[in-house]
Amino acid sequence: MQTLGYYNGEYGPLDQMTVPMLDRACYFGDGVYDAAYSRNHKIFTLGEHVDRFFCSAAALDIELEYTKEELGGILCSMLRKVDSGECFVYWQATRCAAPRTHAYPEPTPRSNLWIMLRPANVLPLERRLKLITAEDTRYLHCDIKTLNLLPNCMAAEQAKRAGADDAVFHRGGRVTEGTSKNCHIIKDGVFVTAPLDHLILAGVARAHLLRACAALGIPARERPFTLEELFAADEVVMSSAGCFGLAAECIDERPVGGKAPEVLARLHRWLWDEFIRETA
Amino acid sequence: MQTLGYYNGEYGPLDQMTVPMLDRACYFGDGVYDAAYSRNHKIFTLGEHVDRFFCSAAALDIELEYTKEELGGILCSMLRKVDSGECFVYWQATRCAAPRTHAYPEPTPRSNLWIMLRPANVLPLERRLKLITAEDTRYLHCDIKTLNLLPNCMAAEQAKRAGADDAVFHRGGRVTEGTSKNCHIIKDGVFVTAPLDHLILAGVARAHLLRACAALGIPARERPFTLEELFAADEVVMSSAGCFGLAAECIDERPVGGKAPEVLARLHRWLWDEFIRETA
Repeated sequence: MQTLGYYNGEYGPLDQMTVPMLDRACYFGDGVYDAAYSRNHKIFTLGEHVDRFFCSAAALDIELEYTKEELGGILCSMLRKVDSGECFVYWQATRCAAPRTHAYPEPTPRSNLWIMLRPANVLPLERRLKLITAEDTRYLHCDIKTLNLLPNCMAAEQAKRAGADDAVFHRGGRVTEGTSKNCHIIKDGVFVTAPLDHLILAGVARAHLLRACAALGIPARERPFTLEELFAADEVVMSSAGCFGLAAECIDERPVGGKAPEVLARLHRWLWDEFIRETA
Repeated sequence: MQTLGYYNGEYGPLDQMTVPMLDRACYFGDGVYDAAYSRNHKIFTLGEHVDRFFCSAAALDIELEYTKEELGGILCSMLRKVDSGECFVYWQATRCAAPRTHAYPEPTPRSNLWIMLRPANVLPLERRLKLITAEDTRYLHCDIKTLNLLPNCMAAEQAKRAGADDAVFHRGGRVTEGTSKNCHIIKDGVFVTAPLDHLILAGVARAHLLRACAALGIPARERPFTLEELFAADEVVMSSAGCFGLAAECIDERPVGGKAPEVLARLHRWLWDEFIRETA
């Protein structure tokens, strides 16, 4: 099978799967998700993604009726059912299916588990991204990985229409993150990334970049940085489960980065080696 | 039939309706909605709600493949299929069903029309509401009626747990609106409501309250107001399609309002008379 969908135990090709109209995802976006990539039928950093998923659910008081191990087991068993070993493995939990009321239904029916698999590869690290900047109009819960993603979609579409790959959000002058990636800079040999607060997601790839810095003796700082610093950086790096740490070549059509290729290359080598080793 | 659901021409009882898992509502909340109440099988202020729905869709570049008249026709024909003439009539348009990518799929498949009907009555105007205040953590697109409603749900749940009926959002000290209602105050005989910007929805009931003020010679101001003014108001009034203009009796367990019952009574009479006349 090419793609595979799952809803509370029911399986099928993604484009044939259906879900109840009354699932609260459908009218409130009331759910949380996580996603990872596989290689050789092995899901890279699965444990970290499942951990974060459970944190997101807890933050919204969504009760999960399975353990982390059971969820991991379902995801791995689904990966064995599809043709490709290189997949985008996506899953979400929604509060419940119930008539529409803003407050949570009581007693709360069981939460719903959705899974979607489709063939996909992580992006090659030599690629350089074209970016635009966009005012961050999102809610103030960006630390929770929820299904309320419209401003992300709007900014991604804005980037696409500008011929770019992604947008970098900022609040006032402070850089937050991309539409689906964390954003970092390298300046004077130091790796700088926004601190973990309610304005950004705690990216798994971000954590691995920080780990790579520690392993390679590259100093790293978690602190807010500005648009001005972004444009003046030696390198601008975007990270996500699907791209580990891609550098940018331009932002708003102005050239950026390209001034610390050796630091970038060391990080790339470390990240790629880890990926290959863990999915061997 | 008690309840009735609709998805792109398919009908059924709400709890039996299913939709494609790949509808972008399901994983991005990528859609817009509107809703109104009926009496005697007539949908009150249908035209205004349909107008706003088309504005919401346009704001998100969601193309609707039907006219306002056609949509109104479908909603009215559905209302004839259910037992109760007093219904909550809810409808939403979602961008399309497609594999998950943040930017809009190209070429964009047709948008999807969802409708949900269930028995419901507008709230009696003599009721007084218990409210809480909550920091407004929502996105900055509150003027568009989208399916990204998680912060609204979280605040409504917070209100419920506090034994209250709803929450009033504020940004810093500035009052914005409720989780699903506009918020207004009456002070020294003047009706005050927040101006129409990206922080609040242009409520149909809000427009009718302003119309009532004009008809009754009650001065009205559209200007920002603060939490301090809220607590010091002669009356605090919450409005929505389902409650026209209910006064509050307490906020955060502090008594509020109750000091301009005669102004309130005049507004209530005007609003209720209009409702009864238009749905006769």
